[in-house]
Amino acid sequence: MRLLSYPTFSVGLLFYYCCTIFSQTPEITSRRPYEDLAHQIITKGLPQGKAYEVLYELTSKIGHRLSGSPQAAKAVEWAKRTMESFGFQNVRLEPVTVPRWVRGPVEEAMIVNSPSIGTRSLKICALGGSIATPEEGITTDVLEVQSFEELQTMGDRAKGKIIFFNRPMDRSNINPFESYGGAVNQRGSGAIEAAKAGGVAALVRSMTMRQDDVPHTGAMHYNDIIPKVPVAAISTVGAKLLTDLIQKEKNVKVKLRLTCQSLPDVESANVIGELVGSEKPNEVVLIGGHLDSWDKGQGAHDDGAGCVHAIEALRLLKELGLIPKRTIRAVMFMNEENGLRGAKAYAAKRRPGEKHIVAIESDAGGFSPRGFGVQADSQIVEKVARWSYLFDSIDADRISRGGGGADISELGKQGVPMIGLRVDPHKYFDYHHSDNDTFDKVNERELELGAVSLAILCYVIAQEGL
Amino acid sequence: MRLLSYPTFSVGLLFYYCCTIFSQTPEITSRRPYEDLAHQIITKGLPQGKAYEVLYELTSKIGHRLSGSPQAAKAVEWAKRTMESFGFQNVRLEPVTVPRWVRGPVEEAMIVNSPSIGTRSLKICALGGSIATPEEGITTDVLEVQSFEELQTMGDRAKGKIIFFNRPMDRSNINPFESYGGAVNQRGSGAIEAAKAGGVAALVRSMTMRQDDVPHTGAMHYNDIIPKVPVAAISTVGAKLLTDLIQKEKNVKVKLRLTCQSLPDVESANVIGELVGSEKPNEVVLIGGHLDSWDKGQGAHDDGAGCVHAIEALRLLKELGLIPKRTIRAVMFMNEENGLRGAKAYAAKRRPGEKHIVAIESDAGGFSPRGFGVQADSQIVEKVARWSYLFDSIDADRISRGGGGADISELGKQGVPMIGLRVDPHKYFDYHHSDNDTFDKVNERELELGAVSLAILCYVIAQEGL
Repeated sequence: MRLLSYPTFSVGLLFYYCCTIFSQTPEITSRRPYEDLAHQIITKGLPQGKAYEVLYELTSKIGHRLSGSPQAAKAVEWAKRTMESFGFQNVRLEPVTVPRWVRGPVEEAMIVNSPSIGTRSLKICALGGSIATPEEGITTDVLEVQSFEELQTMGDRAKGKIIFFNRPMDRSNINPFESYGGAVNQRGSGAIEAAKAGGVAALVRSMTMRQDDVPHTGAMHYNDIIPKVPVAAISTVGAKLLTDLIQKEKNVKVKLRLTCQSLPDVESANVIGELVGSEKPNEVVLIGGHLDSWDKGQGAHDDGAGCVHAIEALRLLKELGLIPKRTIRAVMFMNEENGLRGAKAYAAKRRPGEKHIVAIESDAGGFSPRGFGVQADSQIVEKVARWSYLFDSIDADRISRGGGGADISELGKQGVPMIGLRVDPHKYFDYHHSDNDTFDKVNERELELGAVSLAILCYVIAQEGL
Repeated sequence: MRLLSYPTFSVGLLFYYCCTIFSQTPEITSRRPYEDLAHQIITKGLPQGKAYEVLYELTSKIGHRLSGSPQAAKAVEWAKRTMESFGFQNVRLEPVTVPRWVRGPVEEAMIVNSPSIGTRSLKICALGGSIATPEEGITTDVLEVQSFEELQTMGDRAKGKIIFFNRPMDRSNINPFESYGGAVNQRGSGAIEAAKAGGVAALVRSMTMRQDDVPHTGAMHYNDIIPKVPVAAISTVGAKLLTDLIQKEKNVKVKLRLTCQSLPDVESANVIGELVGSEKPNEVVLIGGHLDSWDKGQGAHDDGAGCVHAIEALRLLKELGLIPKRTIRAVMFMNEENGLRGAKAYAAKRRPGEKHIVAIESDAGGFSPRGFGVQADSQIVEKVARWSYLFDSIDADRISRGGGGADISELGKQGVPMIGLRVDPHKYFDYHHSDNDTFDKVNERELELGAVSLAILCYVIAQEGL
C-alpha cells in the first residue's frame, strides 16, 4: 500500500480509512451518554498512554516471575511501587502463600540409537509441577497416542515406556481457545494417565498451532493414588520429528532427563490499588490480571498485559481527573498459573460492608481488543451490551454472553458478575507459556487500546452500577 | 492464562470462548442464505488452507520484487504457475511496461564532527525514485522542520542545507492509516519542497509509529520545474538522535551518500486467473492485490498477503466444487508501489462484452480481518451490509462505507463498485516498506481468515450480483 499525497495516486489509502461503520451509524444528532467521555479517554490514551512503558518495566527489567521465585517477589514490589507512583489510593499487599516449583539446571531429551538419524536432541521443557527423572535420566521406548482412550487400549504395550501424547490442537475451530480446551487434558492429566497405563514418563505435544521448535510449558497435576512420573512438553517441530521417526522405525528410544523439584511454600501477595468512589466507596468494580507467569519468556502477553491493562485503566481515569462514584480497584493476583492461590485468598478474605458489583479480568493477551464477554444474569448482559456504542470507534464493541477469567472465577462462584476483555485470539498460543512470550511481541497501540477499553467500561460501571 | 482440564481450575478459559455475540444473535431457527456455505468455507480454510504456504513461496523463495527487477519477473512467472497448478481457468499475463529504479550498492548517512558524539552512522534508505548524490556524497548542515509551511518561513536559512522533515505520524488517531495520510506528504513531496527552499537534499522521518532503527522507503516524486535533489528515509531512532543533537548543538552536519538510479522501462505483466461463471461468464467479480513490492524485506504484508488472499479465495471455492454463476477473476497487479501502471493498463484495456460488477482489493496486510469497506452507491453498500451475518462467526462482519484500494481505483473511476478488505490496522506501519515486512510477521490463521472472508464475499456476489 502506498503514497497518499501523490496527486494522481492518492485514492488508494483514502478509501480505507475515510469510512464509518455502515450498519451501526444511524443519523445521530445528540451525543449518547458517556460518548464524550469515551472519546476523551481514547484520545488521551493513544498518544500519551503509558501501558507499553509500564509493560517494558515488568517484562524486560524483571522478566518471567513464577510464583515463589525471586522475580515474583520483585514483581510484587514493582506493582506496589508503580501504583503508588501513579497516585492510586489504598495501595497495599494482601498476603498469599504460594507453591514453589523450580525447573532445575538440566532438561534434555534425546532420540538415541535411531538407525536412520542416530542421536538427535529434542526441544523440551518440564511441565510445571513435574517431578525430576532419576539423575541418569530415563532411557526407553516411546509409545505415541492421540488420546487417553487410545492409551487405555494399549494394554501391556505401554508398560515401561515414555508415553508421547501427540494430539494437535484442532485447527478447524474458529476460536483457538476452543482448540486449546480440546487438547490441554494431555498436559494437565498426561502424567497420571501415563502412569496408570504403566508408563514411566510422558512427553506432551506443546499447546500451540504454530510449527516451531519452542516448547510450551504449563500446569500439570498428580493425585494421591497414582504414582508420579516425570512429564515434559515437546516442541511441535520435535513432535513431528518424533512421530515421523516412529512411523518409519516403529521402536524409537528416547532419553529424558529433568532436574525440576517442588520446594516449600513461599509467602507472597496480591497487590491492590484503588480509585476510591466518591458516593458509594464500598461498592467495588474490580479489574485485574495476574502478576505471576510461567518461567519462560517474559510473561508479556500472559499476563503482563492484563496487569498493565488494569494499572493503565486506573491511571488514565486519574490523569483525566475522573472521580468515580463507586470504587475502582485494580488487583494484581498472584499464582494464577499453578495454584490460583491469590484468587482464592482474595475471594476468601472477609471485607465487611463491601460489595463487589463486578469483577473484570484481562488474561487473553495484549492484542487488539474486540469487546467483552459477560458472565452474568441476562439483564446485566443486556445492560453492558447497550454500552457497546462506546467501543465502536475502536472496533471493540462485540459484547458476548459468557466471559471472565480464572482469577475472578472465585468471586464468580459467590455470584459476582464477571467480565473478560476479549482480544483478537489468533496469536495467543503462538507465545503462551513459552520463550516466545516476550515484550517485543506486544504492539504498543493494541496494548493501549485494551487499557482504554477497560478504562471506559470500568468507569461507566462505577457511575451506573450493573 | 491456564489449564482447562484441571478439575478445580477449569473455569477460566471456558468463559472466554463459550460465548455467542450477544447483540447479534436473535433466536434464529432457520438458516439464512449462504450461512451453510460460509460455514463450509471457514471450516475448510482454517484446517486445510494453503494461504500461508503459498505466501511462503512468494516471500521466502522469491523475496522482495520491485517493479522491473529480476525478482518481479520471477514473481510473475510464479503467480502464473501457481494459479495453473490450482486449476484456475484462463490463466494469462497481460503486458505492462513498468519503470525501473534501483537502489544501488551504497547508501549511507553520517553525523560528522559533532562536538558531543563525533561521527555517528544513521540508518537510512533512499526513497523510491530518488536520484543519487554526487559520488563523494553531500556533506552539509541539517535544517529540521515539521512541515512545508515551516520550511517556507525559513528564507535563506534553508539554502545549501539537508532539509530534515521530522513530523511524526499523529498517535492520537484511532486509525493509523489516517496518521499515515497526515504525514506522508513529507515523503512524497519532501524533495520538491526542499529544493524549492534552496536545500540540496532531504531526509524524511520514516512513516511508522514504532520506535526502531529500521528505515521505511516508499514513493516520492519530482516535477519538471523544480531541480531534483536526493532524498532518503531515516529510521525513527535515527530521527530522534538527530533532533536531540540539533536541540543541543544547533549546527549539525550530516554526510549523505546515495547511489540509486532510474533505468529504462521494463516489460512486465499483470497476472490473471479465473473461475469462469456458469451463467453469466461476462459479468466479472474482480479480486486482487499487487504483486510488486518495495525492495526491502519480503513484501509479505504489502502486498504478498493480498495476492495470496485472492489466489486462496479462488482455490478454496474450486476445492469445494463451487462453480459461480458469474466469473470470479483474480488479478495480481504489477507496479502499484511506484507507478500504478498495472492498474492503469488493466482498466484501459478494451474487454468487449464484459462488465465488472465489483472490484475487490486486499492491500492492508495479512492481519486479522475485521470486515469490508464498500465504495459504491448506497443501495449496494446496504446490500453488502445485509450479508454481514456471514462473517460474524469470524469477527469480520464490520461493513463500512468507503473502501477500495489503489489497484482497483482506476476501475472505480469507471464507476465499478469497489470493496476493500478491512483488517486489524495497528501493526501495518510497523512493517510497511521496510526490512521488517517479512514472512515471519504473518500469522497463519489470520492470513487464512482474510482469504476465507474474501472467498465468501466474492462467491456470494458472483451468485447474487450487486
